[in-house]
Order: sequence, then C-alpha cells, then structure tokens
Amino acid sequence: MGKENEKVVVLDFWASPYAMRTKIALREKGVEFETQQEDLWSKSELLLKSNPVHKKVPVLIHGGKPVSESLIQVQYIDETWTDAASFLPSDPQARANARFWADFAEKTISFQGGRKIWGNNKGEEQEKGKKEFLDSLKVLEAELGDKPYFGGETFDYVDIALVPFYSWFYSLEKCGDFSVEAECPKIVAWGKRCVERDSVAASLPESEKVYQQVLKLRQIFGVE
Amino acid sequence: MGKENEKVVVLDFWASPYAMRTKIALREKGVEFETQQEDLWSKSELLLKSNPVHKKVPVLIHGGKPVSESLIQVQYIDETWTDAASFLPSDPQARANARFWADFAEKTISFQGGRKIWGNNKGEEQEKGKKEFLDSLKVLEAELGDKPYFGGETFDYVDIALVPFYSWFYSLEKCGDFSVEAECPKIVAWGKRCVERDSVAASLPESEKVYQQVLKLRQIFGVE
Repeated sequence: MGKENEKVVVLDFWASPYAMRTKIALREKGVEFETQQEDLWSKSELLLKSNPVHKKVPVLIHGGKPVSESLIQVQYIDETWTDAASFLPSDPQARANARFWADFAEKTISFQGGRKIWGNNKGEEQEKGKKEFLDSLKVLEAELGDKPYFGGETFDYVDIALVPFYSWFYSLEKCGDFSVEAECPKIVAWGKRCVERDSVAASLPESEKVYQQVLKLRQIFGVE
Repeated sequence: MGKENEKVVVLDFWASPYAMRTKIALREKGVEFETQQEDLWSKSELLLKSNPVHKKVPVLIHGGKPVSESLIQVQYIDETWTDAASFLPSDPQARANARFWADFAEKTISFQGGRKIWGNNKGEEQEKGKKEFLDSLKVLEAELGDKPYFGGETFDYVDIALVPFYSWFYSLEKCGDFSVEAECPKIVAWGKRCVERDSVAASLPESEKVYQQVLKLRQIFGVE
C-alpha cells in the first residue's frame, strides 16, 4: 500500500479558518479523511501529543504521523498526492509569487487580525482593526485584479490560504458595522466564485453559524 | 542562456539576519551575485519599486525580476539552481518537518524578538525578552539534539533560516548580561560548526561589528 493510501485524520475545529485550508486541500486532491473535532478549551491528548510545540488545530495525521501548521499541511498534501494538479505553478518565479501572497494573507488576514474587529466594542481599537483588515484586503484585491482566482484560471495555493476567512466576513461586518463588499467588491465576488467549488462548499461553515460562535466568543472574552 | 545564468543582485543590509539567509543560500549553490547595500533610513527607489508591499531588505533580483521575503528567496534559489544539492529533503514528511522548524525559527528567533533584549535597558521588559528568546532556543536545541546540523548530516533549510541570528548572540549577551552558551551549549556548538562553512563565514559579519551597530540602534531608539 502506497503512502498516499494510508489513513488521514484532521484534528479539527469547524470554525477554524486554518483547519478549513487543510480540508479544502484534501478535498481538492480527492483524498478521503476523517475529522476529529477538538474542544479548544479542553484539548485532546492526541492533539497535545501530535503538536506539542504549538498545541493548535489543525493537525493532519497521515499514516499515524502528524504534520502541523496549515500552510505546511497544504504543501504536504500537494507533495504527497501528486496525481491531481499541483496547487503551485511549476515555474520558480511564479511559485515564489504564490508563496509571497499566501504569506501576506497569513500575516495580515488572520484570526488575530479579525479579533481586533469582533473582539472589541465600537471605538478606536475596533476602527484600527477595520482599517488594517480593509487595507490588507485591498492590497490582495489589487493582486487579484480581474482574474477569476489568485492562481489565474486555476484555484491555487493563495486561494486555499485566503478563502477560509471569507466565511468570517459576515461576522466581522456585523460586529464592525461595515460592508466588505462596498470596500472590496472583487474580493467578495471571488469568495462567491470559490464557494461554488465542492471542496470549498464542503469546508466552509455557514456565515450565520460562524456569527453565533463569534457571539459566544464575545461573551467569553467579556465584550459587551 | 538559461535562467540560472542571468544576473543576480541582492538588495542588502549587511547586519540583516534575513539578508544573510539569502546570501548563504546563493553561496551554498555556488551562484555569483552582487550586493547593493541599502540605507534603511533612506531606501533606494529600486528597493521601493521591487518590494512595494513590505519595502524591506532583502530583495533578490534575478534576471531583472524581484523576489521578496528571505525564506521564499531561499526556496526560489533551491528550485532555480538545481544542480547543487537541495536544501530540503525529498520525502514530503521530512520536508514538512524542515518547514515546521524554519517557520518556528522565523516566528520566535527574529529581529523583533531580539529587539526586546537589545532595545530595552535592564528591567522587566528585557527579562521577558530574554526568557522568550531562551525558551524558544531551547525548543530548537531539543530538536537539534546531537545531530551536527538541523538537516542531520546535511546543512539544510532550517540551518539557513536560523544561523544568521548566531551573529547577533554576542550583542544580545552584552545588552542582556547573560550567556547563550551557558543556557544552550549545543546551539552555540552548532553555530560554531556552521561558521566553518565558507557560505556562512562569507555571509555573517563579525559579532563585534554587529554589536557596534546595535549600540548605534540603541542611541537612535533612545535606550540609555
């Protein structure tokens, strides 16, 4: 039995944008996998043992061996299941460009970045969070331009890195009282296009469900 | 003329650990290149044009086309000059492991992390910076174990990512009044081993020269 046929498990939390990346990548490659939902306030022994450094979801366990960090998992998936199209172009310059934008998305459009919006009441901190979020999204929108995907005609590495955060836009809009579509119409059109893919549709939760989770988080963190 | 023979320029600042990575990678591959030193307080038009998003050194310009972000540059170099040995192992699991530790080094042993030590006078903030730095270095030391390099017998991607910071250890020790060797003897032995390589020796400045630069930075930022 080849390595690519061994059992795949994702230690998951359904609302984690990082875990969504991993699930999208597996689905794009047509890999069968199980998910094991984690309680982030009481993490499983398996999670703590599999990712002892960061202790975070997602963990991809393949043939009993763990891989941590979502973008590293996406590259691992790409390099392990090579029958389906690669997420990265073959030209080194184009690969570097894709890695640059995935890295930019990772550094700017993050759970922690979004938290400056949903984790604060209206006021200066939240306005700062909104500005940072929209400024970064506009840089990404300029890179997207009129292409259907960041990968051009192909849904690729950058699309996988960024699209999970699309499922959080509604929550950010509700908490921050603004419209992403009014500011970044091409990004929202791109998000809608991505969600038409089976891999994305199966991996992204409903916006309303994320919002209910965000309201719970706001209670836990004492916002409002 | 093949792509690999086109002109290579590094927009550089000699004391930047990130730029050191790029120079080490080029030298490991035996690539001839020019450096162009940048004044970080008055950046060149070429730097601003080549890296408009981050506006940071290093930028690797190959055949007139820029690549930004040092770890992306190291991967670009690895994928462009393929005659010399790869910096990454061929097995996907081992590649993911190398990427994990390079990412850990990137997130924890950074210029900004070091700045908590050299950018503060003695006191609580500096002690916090020292603790974070040494805690992270100890995690890396445990991963290194008794291997000569992070890549095992081979000087590889993780070694390239981390070794530039070795040239800053002396400055951190002088500013923070501690000994890295007393806390992490295997990491210091590894650093000495790396510096025996021509690629590293040619890319890392003298510790005393870095320290003089740090003293200038402390003046600029109003420390002491």
